[in-house]
Formats: sequence, C-alpha cells, structure tokens
Amino acid sequence: MEHLTLHEDPRSGNCYKIVLTAALLGLPLRRRQYDILRGETRSAEFLQTVNASGRIPVLQIGKRFLPESNAACWYLAEGSRLIPTDRFDRADVLRWMFFEQGSHEPNVATLRFWLRFIGEANLSAFQRDQIMAKRAGGEAALGVMNEHLTGRDWFVGDKVSLADIALYAYTHVSEAGGFRLHDYPAVCRWLDRVAKLPGYAPMN
Amino acid sequence: MEHLTLHEDPRSGNCYKIVLTAALLGLPLRRRQYDILRGETRSAEFLQTVNASGRIPVLQIGKRFLPESNAACWYLAEGSRLIPTDRFDRADVLRWMFFEQGSHEPNVATLRFWLRFIGEANLSAFQRDQIMAKRAGGEAALGVMNEHLTGRDWFVGDKVSLADIALYAYTHVSEAGGFRLHDYPAVCRWLDRVAKLPGYAPMN
Repeated sequence: MEHLTLHEDPRSGNCYKIVLTAALLGLPLRRRQYDILRGETRSAEFLQTVNASGRIPVLQIGKRFLPESNAACWYLAEGSRLIPTDRFDRADVLRWMFFEQGSHEPNVATLRFWLRFIGEANLSAFQRDQIMAKRAGGEAALGVMNEHLTGRDWFVGDKVSLADIALYAYTHVSEAGGFRLHDYPAVCRWLDRVAKLPGYAPMN
Repeated sequence: MEHLTLHEDPRSGNCYKIVLTAALLGLPLRRRQYDILRGETRSAEFLQTVNASGRIPVLQIGKRFLPESNAACWYLAEGSRLIPTDRFDRADVLRWMFFEQGSHEPNVATLRFWLRFIGEANLSAFQRDQIMAKRAGGEAALGVMNEHLTGRDWFVGDKVSLADIALYAYTHVSEAGGFRLHDYPAVCRWLDRVAKLPGYAPMN
C-alpha cells in the first residue's frame, strides 16, 4: 500500500475511526494534525492541496486525497477481516456506517462538539434551539444500537467489522455531549468488547 | 440473486436510488408502496417485520431486510459496472455516497419534503427556523458538485457509478425545494447525461 497520511484534528471522532481502523489492521499511518477551532483547515494551502471544502478527516494515499471518514476506513479495510466476505453482510456493514453518518453523528457528535469544545455559553441562539432535537435524535440512535446489540456481540455477524469501528468512535465519548451511557447496557458491554480488541488504540 | 422487494414511498429520492440502480442493471424488483405521510410505515406489521425504526427504503432480499438506501444500492451493484474495480476509485464512490447522505440529503431533500409535501404554511416554527441554514447547506453541496463536475462527465473516473446514481436522485428534483439548478451548469449537463443512460427509469 502507498504511504498513508491522515490529515486530522485528534479531537474528532471521525478522524479517530481511521486511526483505530489502521491500528487494528497494523497499518502504518502518518498523522498530520490541525486545530479546526483555529481555522487551520481553512488555510489556502489546505484548501488547495488537501480538501477544497476545508473539512477533515482526509486520508492521503500517496498523492491522492480521500475525504469522508467511512470511505477512508473502507479503503484501509478492504480485503481484511474488518469487512465480511458475504455479500449481504458486507452491505449490512455499510448500512450501519450510513446509519452512523445519517442518524448518529449529526446528533451525538454535534452535541459533544458544542458542549465540550465550543461551550454552552458560547452557542448561538440557532444552535441552542437545536439542542433538544439533537438530544432526542442521539438518544433514538443509541436506543437502536442498544436494541440491536441485545443478545449479540457485534453489529454484523459474529465478528468485529467496520460497522463497530464507525459507531464506536463517537459513542464511547458521548457522555461529553450529555448522553448517559448507563441507560444503554448492551452498548456499554459492546464498548468494553471493542476496547479489548488486539491492537486497539485509544483516542488520545 | 434472491427475490428483491423494495419497501418504498415512491416520492422519496432515497427509494428512487434503488429503483434506478436496479433499472440500470436490469434487475427485477418488486415494489411495495407505503404512504409515509399517512403513517403507513408505522404500522405494527411494518415495525415488526420490515424495519423497527419505521423508515423507508428497505430492500428485502429473500427473507432478509436491508435499510439505508446507499447500502441497498451497494448490495445490488456489487460486481457490476456501477462499482469500479480500482481500490481507490471504489472508496471514492463511497466518499461521494457519504457526502450525499451527510451534506446533500439533509438539506436538499429535506427542503423538498417540507416545501413540496408538507407545505410551508404547515411547517412548525422549529422547521421554519432551519430553512435558511438548509438552503445554505444545500447550495454549498450543489456548489461542490458543480465544481467537481466542471471538466468531467462523472463523479468518479470516466464512467457512471453508484456515486452518480446516489447524487442524481434528490438533485434532479431539487427545484421542488426551491433550489435554482441553472446556477449550476455543470450539474445540469450531468443530469442530462444520467437521464440518457440505457435502461434509465424516471422517478415514478
């Protein structure tokens, strides 16, 4: 595989997914860090060479750049044990990864970012007005996860997959966004299972 | 392939992606229709057998059920010309599909749903307060698409792929949400290109 460089802010769960995938697979990953709160991904150099939209993470593979955290994880994991060989199970992994980006991250990750890194006192009125809906959306997503994990160890089949990695990233730090993980006991047991995987890397 | 049944509301672009993928690939697809505005995906039968979250689309494959539109498209298209054989290009297709669900659909599709199907007069104050942000988010997504398509025919490589199908669905009906497609000339040319594909099926 060509040289891999992750352009990241290490506080971002989306970036951490890629770090964790690479760690579990033993892939060497260079990490280039930016502070998004200081606008470091809005520099002319970043916009011209890394990502015109100014967003991280971006996985650099040789001289090519791949935005979108879950696409980057997929690139790293193809052909590995983290993507099932069965056609339905493979699509089911993507199902949970799209659930993560569509129903989980916009609620669970956003509240963590707002409450932990921006600070409630600094939120705009528009942001404050969305807290209740994001709280409800995040609780619904955690509820779906808890129900699915009740009686099973992993999201797809009987082995860890990218579905688990994608959902682990923001779930395991969701209490910083005001979620109460002890309300979701099957999720808590699954978080412990992920953290005990050989090669596991913590989020800084 | 096992019998395929799409559980859908035919007004939904997320459902239409799956219809269009199957049409382009010549795959027979049974379609079972529900009216989401009448709560037909909230019936006890639907929640118990199709999708506990009450959401559509769900692709039924034999006796198994696969939610999430882009995961369903992936299931149908694996091994076909709609998914590139090159590893980077394949991840790049997913990159645009995650962009669609993360940055495009929550803005472009939501405004169409609110303005065309709910009606502006019937929106809640909370929804009305979000219109401006969703307008800006949708315009940003269409701008990213227009810039990417300037000087190229398709999103990934030099052939149509699932990236095009996923982004086409809500873009081609975005004027119903108040977006002005003539502001995005490269997007308009690409929409025409998709509509001329052999096997193309219109939305409804």
